[in-house]
Amino acid sequence: MIQIVAKYKLKPGVKEEYLRLSKELIDETRKEEGCIHYSIYEEINDSSILAMLEEWKDEDAIVSHNNSDHMKRIIPELKKLRESTEINLYREIDF
Amino acid sequence: MIQIVAKYKLKPGVKEEYLRLSKELIDETRKEEGCIHYSIYEEINDSSILAMLEEWKDEDAIVSHNNSDHMKRIIPELKKLRESTEINLYREIDF
Repeated sequence: MIQIVAKYKLKPGVKEEYLRLSKELIDETRKEEGCIHYSIYEEINDSSILAMLEEWKDEDAIVSHNNSDHMKRIIPELKKLRESTEINLYREIDF
Repeated sequence: MIQIVAKYKLKPGVKEEYLRLSKELIDETRKEEGCIHYSIYEEINDSSILAMLEEWKDEDAIVSHNNSDHMKRIIPELKKLRESTEINLYREIDF
């Protein structure tokens, strides 16, 4: 499994539009075969910071997600509303 | 529920020690009543970046975790091994 933490700082005044687009993306993404978890979260101490916390079956699932129609259509719109982006892909360390 | 993403950049050459201490912290923390998920992850593209991905029942569970003996004992040791720290607390946005 692969976890993705995609952290965004929004531009001022765009949150409603951002969430509208995000909901569309979430609804489509959750239908994808390798998608285990895909939800949007708000930072408790700074409401202009949002994060998509994701869990994927494997790297192939992520590649096909990134090439999906809904990502190609919606991500460019979301990018216009972001001030900054920080994306990390993680694998769990098993002791 | 509250998600915590605690992202760390390690100093060079400390990873084995860092993971040894982290395992101790994880074993103790998972016994805590409000702890839903508490695991350590490695960044796929940069092995010097680790993240503790956590899920807690509520803020009280986090407060008691931060005041626990194992946190008070182990965190100062882990801090010595970190180059940088970035901690975010998130609540899921329900549409």
